[in-house]
Amino acid sequence: MLSKKYSKVAGQSSVIRQIFEFGKKRALEVGAENVFDFSIGNPSVPAPKSVNETAIRIMNENDPCFVHGYPSAVGYDDTREAIANSLNKRYAMNYHKNNIFMTNGAAAAITLCFRAVSDYGSNDEIIVIAPYFPEYKCFIEGSGVKCVEVEADTKDFQIDFDKLSAAINENTRAIILNSPNNPTGVVYSEETIKTLSSILEEASNKYGRAIYIIADEPYREIVFSGYTVPYIPKYYKNTLVCYSYSKSLSIPGERIGYIAFSDEIEDADLMFGTIGAVAREMSYVGVPSLFQMVVRDCVDDTADISVYETNKNLIYNALKDIGYSVVEPNGTFYIFPKCLEDDANAFCEKARNYDLLIVPSDSFSIKGYFRLSYCVPTARVEKAIPLFEKLYKDYN
Amino acid sequence: MLSKKYSKVAGQSSVIRQIFEFGKKRALEVGAENVFDFSIGNPSVPAPKSVNETAIRIMNENDPCFVHGYPSAVGYDDTREAIANSLNKRYAMNYHKNNIFMTNGAAAAITLCFRAVSDYGSNDEIIVIAPYFPEYKCFIEGSGVKCVEVEADTKDFQIDFDKLSAAINENTRAIILNSPNNPTGVVYSEETIKTLSSILEEASNKYGRAIYIIADEPYREIVFSGYTVPYIPKYYKNTLVCYSYSKSLSIPGERIGYIAFSDEIEDADLMFGTIGAVAREMSYVGVPSLFQMVVRDCVDDTADISVYETNKNLIYNALKDIGYSVVEPNGTFYIFPKCLEDDANAFCEKARNYDLLIVPSDSFSIKGYFRLSYCVPTARVEKAIPLFEKLYKDYN
Repeated sequence: MLSKKYSKVAGQSSVIRQIFEFGKKRALEVGAENVFDFSIGNPSVPAPKSVNETAIRIMNENDPCFVHGYPSAVGYDDTREAIANSLNKRYAMNYHKNNIFMTNGAAAAITLCFRAVSDYGSNDEIIVIAPYFPEYKCFIEGSGVKCVEVEADTKDFQIDFDKLSAAINENTRAIILNSPNNPTGVVYSEETIKTLSSILEEASNKYGRAIYIIADEPYREIVFSGYTVPYIPKYYKNTLVCYSYSKSLSIPGERIGYIAFSDEIEDADLMFGTIGAVAREMSYVGVPSLFQMVVRDCVDDTADISVYETNKNLIYNALKDIGYSVVEPNGTFYIFPKCLEDDANAFCEKARNYDLLIVPSDSFSIKGYFRLSYCVPTARVEKAIPLFEKLYKDYN
Repeated sequence: MLSKKYSKVAGQSSVIRQIFEFGKKRALEVGAENVFDFSIGNPSVPAPKSVNETAIRIMNENDPCFVHGYPSAVGYDDTREAIANSLNKRYAMNYHKNNIFMTNGAAAAITLCFRAVSDYGSNDEIIVIAPYFPEYKCFIEGSGVKCVEVEADTKDFQIDFDKLSAAINENTRAIILNSPNNPTGVVYSEETIKTLSSILEEASNKYGRAIYIIADEPYREIVFSGYTVPYIPKYYKNTLVCYSYSKSLSIPGERIGYIAFSDEIEDADLMFGTIGAVAREMSYVGVPSLFQMVVRDCVDDTADISVYETNKNLIYNALKDIGYSVVEPNGTFYIFPKCLEDDANAFCEKARNYDLLIVPSDSFSIKGYFRLSYCVPTARVEKAIPLFEKLYKDYN
């Protein structure tokens, strides 16, 4: 007999994954060029040339026992130093290597943070802003604490501070922020971060312990002209930044990222070791060795992510012109328009009549929207636009 | 304020790690050639040439979006098929790809298994045979269940079946076996596996649910002349084999391994999905992409691990001749002699007078022994032998 908890959900796949699998099947029937799979957020641009060149150079120039050997569980010193220096330069921080803890991508980073700032089976709560990446709830509840959903202000998908203030209480341990945001594409403005910081500072004082911001930032580099992504630790000291090289270097399969926090964070002396204790218990023995060295040497490179902005401009302008209600994305490769009926599932089913594969917003804990991932060739976006027009006409 | 549980152990490092750090410091004082660091079990032979060659070929011949892209959380189909085929050939099994779940090394594999077969916070128990790899306890207790220690038969470090039988009860969910064994170097004999299987079958029948064997086998390929490592699923169907390429391919830093189970295992239809549900909650998004492909193409290769047997013969014969009481290792790169006084910590302290860095057995939950890791250059073993002789004379 297996674990009751896990066997109950054995083999359940996410709605996103189901749509993706449907798309692959459908492509066999009608040809891949006639299926418009906008379901998955998988980078569509290649890694910069420097990534493979660096990996090959490292393998050619070094002892394999070193290249493929055990790194320390916290990551290589020189990789962590390179990341600290890069962040210091970009954001005028004072990071040193012990402010950086290497992780297997951002998913592992946020999970380590959830567990480092809360206690399994206690009354602890962690706040998410809906709509949100569905794995947050899984990771938070897997950490044995409560996932508290606060709906965003849907006029611009910034934070609704009345709703947030009402949700904060003595059990609030952290809030997870994702900016640029999956699924909305929105970047939280400086004003949003400032207001949030003052609310959290007040609440931390009131309840006598820090409420941490866990800043999940895999999309930080994918930001469109005219926008910048505020670096949250500049505004709020009790911030844990969770980063991944999946999107910036287009290497999501290599599972590499980090947690960064400044010396100003509450319990700074314990933070590094506490995260390490969580990682040990979760059997995160270390982050892949070769790609830690690649990141060290490619820390300031990025893949050519300009196609995402090209695609955003095309799809955003087209949907708006057709008549869809949609907030303009400031970054990522997602857009999150309103459905043309209340039931997002029914709407996305109808879109399938045109082989448009989009994700109903229920997956992101909000009703009436759909997510479209435009990390696809631009030609595919262009070809899909008339289909969205037909779909609109069916409703009007 | 941070997690009570984890911040309490923040920054605590294992005794093994402390000795290793001491060795690095001591090397600065007296020269690396005069420090005999036998503390760490880190492979000392390079990966076979095919590893780097394959990695470079894959990068040169394929689209980087594919090479570094997201694999499915369970692993690539063709990697899992290659592993299944290799095991079928070697052990006459009938594995197919859905009997293989890729993991970030053996540590992740065993942790996923612990959680898949038990329930957090229940009365469930998992048995370990002492002496054992200290992380087992951390991973089992981190899974919210009880770690039950059963001392091995110390005359040969096979299983003491009277003690084992006394430890099995209605709460027993699994037993973790490690053969070839860290720290003793012993391989469990076919007789041991047969007796164990019949005891577990009887107990499974008595209590009406399977007791699983979790076979932790990172050292499977490091086995010395005259010995073979029984493939446990041939003897006991309810076996989850946990494997790592860390030692066989000498790539411990790349974190790649798998869980294998046959279609005959109890709850076979749920096993794969249940393991997947645990992996999802623990934010194990996927196993590094490039090295999954390397393993696919190098699945039957091994590093030149013959040096370990050379070293074993040297150190085992020398220690025995000097007068130490020691069981001959059949594999791994460890040996586990009796200390010359009851207090292993005191003994290992005295060994430091000769710059012999060895690990007291208390770390492995047994008293009076020390572990010596001979994954070092042969010359270092040779040079250390007279020092072990001097140490012996100090006691006699």
